[in-house]
Amino acid sequence: MIIQLKSDANSQQIEAINQALADRSYKANPVSTQHRNYLVAIGKSEIDIRSIGVLEGIADIHRVSDQYKLVSKKWKLKDTVIDLGDGVNIGSGDFAVMAGPCSIEGEEQVESTVEHLASNGVRIMRGGVYKPRSSPYSFRGLGQEGLKMFHRLCSAKSIKIITEVMQVSQIKEMFDFVDIFQVGARNSQNFNLLDALGEVDKPVLLKRGISGTVDELLFAAEYIFSNGNEKIMLCERGIRSYEKAYRNTLDLNAIPILKERTHLPVIVDPSHGIGLRKYVEPMALAGIMAGADGIIVEVHEQPEKAFSDGQQTLNYKEAEILYRKMKDCFRLRESW
Amino acid sequence: MIIQLKSDANSQQIEAINQALADRSYKANPVSTQHRNYLVAIGKSEIDIRSIGVLEGIADIHRVSDQYKLVSKKWKLKDTVIDLGDGVNIGSGDFAVMAGPCSIEGEEQVESTVEHLASNGVRIMRGGVYKPRSSPYSFRGLGQEGLKMFHRLCSAKSIKIITEVMQVSQIKEMFDFVDIFQVGARNSQNFNLLDALGEVDKPVLLKRGISGTVDELLFAAEYIFSNGNEKIMLCERGIRSYEKAYRNTLDLNAIPILKERTHLPVIVDPSHGIGLRKYVEPMALAGIMAGADGIIVEVHEQPEKAFSDGQQTLNYKEAEILYRKMKDCFRLRESW
Amino acid sequence: MIIQLKSDANSQQIEAINQALADRSYKANPVSTQHRNYLVAIGKSEIDIRSIGVLEGIADIHRVSDQYKLVSKKWKLKDTVIDLGDGVNIGSGDFAVMAGPCSIEGEEQVESTVEHLASNGVRIMRGGVYKPRSSPYSFRGLGQEGLKMFHRLCSAKSIKIITEVMQVSQIKEMFDFVDIFQVGARNSQNFNLLDALGEVDKPVLLKRGISGTVDELLFAAEYIFSNGNEKIMLCERGIRSYEKAYRNTLDLNAIPILKERTHLPVIVDPSHGIGLRKYVEPMALAGIMAGADGIIVEVHEQPEKAFSDGQQTLNYKEAEILYRKMKDCFRLRESW
Amino acid sequence: MIIQLKSDANSQQIEAINQALADRSYKANPVSTQHRNYLVAIGKSEIDIRSIGVLEGIADIHRVSDQYKLVSKKWKLKDTVIDLGDGVNIGSGDFAVMAGPCSIEGEEQVESTVEHLASNGVRIMRGGVYKPRSSPYSFRGLGQEGLKMFHRLCSAKSIKIITEVMQVSQIKEMFDFVDIFQVGARNSQNFNLLDALGEVDKPVLLKRGISGTVDELLFAAEYIFSNGNEKIMLCERGIRSYEKAYRNTLDLNAIPILKERTHLPVIVDPSHGIGLRKYVEPMALAGIMAGADGIIVEVHEQPEKAFSDGQQTLNYKEAEILYRKMKDCFRLRESW
Repeated sequence: MIIQLKSDANSQQIEAINQALADRSYKANPVSTQHRNYLVAIGKSEIDIRSIGVLEGIADIHRVSDQYKLVSKKWKLKDTVIDLGDGVNIGSGDFAVMAGPCSIEGEEQVESTVEHLASNGVRIMRGGVYKPRSSPYSFRGLGQEGLKMFHRLCSAKSIKIITEVMQVSQIKEMFDFVDIFQVGARNSQNFNLLDALGEVDKPVLLKRGISGTVDELLFAAEYIFSNGNEKIMLCERGIRSYEKAYRNTLDLNAIPILKERTHLPVIVDPSHGIGLRKYVEPMALAGIMAGADGIIVEVHEQPEKAFSDGQQTLNYKEAEILYRKMKDCFRLRESW
Repeated sequence: MIIQLKSDANSQQIEAINQALADRSYKANPVSTQHRNYLVAIGKSEIDIRSIGVLEGIADIHRVSDQYKLVSKKWKLKDTVIDLGDGVNIGSGDFAVMAGPCSIEGEEQVESTVEHLASNGVRIMRGGVYKPRSSPYSFRGLGQEGLKMFHRLCSAKSIKIITEVMQVSQIKEMFDFVDIFQVGARNSQNFNLLDALGEVDKPVLLKRGISGTVDELLFAAEYIFSNGNEKIMLCERGIRSYEKAYRNTLDLNAIPILKERTHLPVIVDPSHGIGLRKYVEPMALAGIMAGADGIIVEVHEQPEKAFSDGQQTLNYKEAEILYRKMKDCFRLRESW
Repeated sequence: MIIQLKSDANSQQIEAINQALADRSYKANPVSTQHRNYLVAIGKSEIDIRSIGVLEGIADIHRVSDQYKLVSKKWKLKDTVIDLGDGVNIGSGDFAVMAGPCSIEGEEQVESTVEHLASNGVRIMRGGVYKPRSSPYSFRGLGQEGLKMFHRLCSAKSIKIITEVMQVSQIKEMFDFVDIFQVGARNSQNFNLLDALGEVDKPVLLKRGISGTVDELLFAAEYIFSNGNEKIMLCERGIRSYEKAYRNTLDLNAIPILKERTHLPVIVDPSHGIGLRKYVEPMALAGIMAGADGIIVEVHEQPEKAFSDGQQTLNYKEAEILYRKMKDCFRLRESW
Repeated sequence: MIIQLKSDANSQQIEAINQALADRSYKANPVSTQHRNYLVAIGKSEIDIRSIGVLEGIADIHRVSDQYKLVSKKWKLKDTVIDLGDGVNIGSGDFAVMAGPCSIEGEEQVESTVEHLASNGVRIMRGGVYKPRSSPYSFRGLGQEGLKMFHRLCSAKSIKIITEVMQVSQIKEMFDFVDIFQVGARNSQNFNLLDALGEVDKPVLLKRGISGTVDELLFAAEYIFSNGNEKIMLCERGIRSYEKAYRNTLDLNAIPILKERTHLPVIVDPSHGIGLRKYVEPMALAGIMAGADGIIVEVHEQPEKAFSDGQQTLNYKEAEILYRKMKDCFRLRESW
């Protein structure tokens, strides 16, 4: 059960609600986000929510039969829109495009990418400065200094930044230099990191685990939301299957199912999703028709020379064709 | 290596080619299809194919590095078009739609479906008369009599028929009443059935195994082709994964990969693919953007009352919306 | 519900039982096996089975809540023992060992294997004469002639034969020369083949599908049993997973679960199961501790020179060590 | 390439080695563990390691073709033994048993378990105080206070403690109260946590990811080792597959493969592995025959009343039977 409190609910009223819940063996979890104050009440017995709803201080009350609560569409029918400022929105009528290299490599590379993006109307740049790597001996990214440079060059052109955060201690030092924190597939159930990201006021893009279920992804989002941050988007990035013809199995089935279950925006990552450059375009377009609100795609001036994995990265020319076709697809979808 | 023989190649010439191959430790598999005569030569050593190509009786010769040969795009760049007669083609510039119920249930049902299809310009009707069922106690279809009725009602309206064949002995009795033989996922490596379907002149739609690989699907097609039947289409119908949020995992990654590897048409089955009615539409549309040449979709006047599984079946109204959107998607794709 | 009929039940009595079932909206499937006559009654409503049980002609009656019936342990608590003659039993207190090459290659090979088996007390030889192969251009086995030779050499030493049957038409021609029909993983849901094997009086070893579920395996066995053949054993042979460190994922979890659910003997195939020779021994021993009733293992005098896949095949010396350790394991298990 | 430095190697000698490596385009990663100092040299070209080996200050030098280095058996043939003190060793000739509840619930529960363990000769107790939970609203464990109580009661009886660490900041506060840090499946690629655990002198048990590969598990161990901690054991705990008959798919194939590839001890977790209480025993015994060095198993006085998941937990009586049978299995294995 989700209880939205009135903005002027006083402590006496809240106390009375808590007492009424306790009387019915429900545990109330108070949640304060950027937008509102809630009580998420968890209990086992069936109760008539009207007996709670009549209490003072309550703006709205909903039964939510899903195990996840605040991220469920059963409670909040209206799709969440994430406003990044400067007219950049995710989840609204616009289709969000986030493009850029796997890793931030240096000033020249960022400048070139920013120019490519700006001239194609792309408003969000992706690029890793902390890189999770299977082997401890691999390049792990330019770190904080790289991020500052990345931010300086992007903000000069009003390009927003999405980059991966790998641990709690990085959140504070990254905060001023990112527009979206990305949680990678390997950290999709790093609950301490999710808790901590719930405590900041900055959008989070949450990737599905390498073999994460749709429910686990929603629960991960619930961790963030229930700690106070409503600005979450979900990302399908390919799962593990037995098939070896491609590197990951982009699971587009997850898109319409997530759109049905949650009010959060859903992004598709065709680059990691299929992992092979020449199939990125059709999978991106398929993702739009499946219902995605946006795309995150790897683009590099010279994919062959990229620091990290260039096998799945488009060059500028390929990316431009993709941007154009995505616009066509999105326009067609909106026309129905 | 694939050697296309001239149509007037004589036995002496063929003998000489075989001898030349044997001298190089290559084994020649003679293949005669509806369209041509071939020798598929398999060997381990590297040879200069020009030394064979100069022999008389040869129209064309190709090295094919894939393990499958006749179905490979490395040999035949031009996409295969399957002509069903009456202007119905699969794999040409048209998008093929095959729609209908899971099982043929009776005359009334077929008539209603035929009318629905005809009034929406759909030219191919699907419907099972031999049904593979997990339990031996389940309904196994109306059989031969049902097929005859199905054929009578469809041919009256120039609607083509696709239906599943489950064993070699059925081929002959079904032959006059079907336009496309469907091989189900459970028989995707029933090699004797594939051999036998290679010996008839009738198109075959081959479904990917329940956890079949892309390569296994191509090899299955090679069985049919190498026995003499070039009229093959491939169908992605969902694979098995760990995810339980949907019934199967429609693997759209397979679409662009198959289109890259083979000249055969590629069909997508979103009904079995995701297995849940309300997600069939987005997955079908996504399939088109991924590059499919056609769709096979379950439609029933009253899905709730269908004999077999109605959980993944659209009603007529839902189907009509889908037909229209698919047309839009296909037109957009063709416009690029 | 399973109704075991008395051996002297007359048609009038059976008619009355059928009528009583029909009155309760139950469909009776008559089953006559080597051992007994049954009615398998399928219906949706809850009924008091005692109201049926009081009728004449009934030896025993059981409610079976599983969807599979005749193979369920809920009905038949006592484990099935398969008697191959000459004192060779499967599923009794003895541990069954079936060993031999992947493919029958020739007289010399069979003689050598027979000698190896006889001198180690192994009573059942495996070896394929009809080989399912991914590629149509691969060696498909010595066929009927090979089988006759195989049978002649084995029966001279009282060695029993297990070999794969791939299609209905082979059953009759193989019947006199085999002791156990093997159904391969690719045919695990070839329902026509299962039906036909239900009509013969010869044991069948049924392999789990390449990504078959435990339930599908039990349903496949139900096909055979419900057509009249009780002599069935089940075989775990490795499933498909995402892991590439071995060729298949031997799923030993299936062993105790099958032993709990069915009265049929359960065999483990560590050779295909893990697919890598040096790990066959530990997986075989693990299989015994998991509860298997027997093993089927690939052995060849010179695995490197085997016609088909030698990567997973033990040589004689390795096999002898395995036989000895398996005996120790089985003895320990029986001692508890 | 792994270079073991002499314990008295001086900085000048090390400098010379680094220079020689740099000359050959090799990057040297210095590693100092509890036992030794190493240089792990990574490069692309083939070099004659003897040209390095002749330099002063080097105790030993090995080429390691695996991508993981320090954990590879190609370098260190002798199995690692982890000494927990008080005569408790893991990876030696003894079979290690770690048993206890999923979650630490209170003093009474710990006392009861300690008594059960002590009277059965079990020297290591498992029990979670920080619990990773899918839902943010679930019980997350007793935390630091629970750990102190757990440690007090165990150390009174010389019982060692293994418990899960979830984030870097917990390491320091847990350090004095644990004998083995456990890294859970969800954190198997939490590289920052692995780095930090490499910097402490305390054994670590590393669980395979929920769909982690064998290679990823070895790489995760390499993270810890290369940061300075050699005391690592690996744990197979079930992977995700399509099968729904059990909760996880215990992958015993991983046991012999890990034993072949690494010198680290390998532990099997049959409780999470199959996830169903009545199958824990056969899977545990199978794990021993597959080659495991130890077991970690869930035991609770009253599994039905356990705070967290009791579905996979043995009661004391079941556990006692298992301990005895495991002893028999291990003794048999050692006798060969």
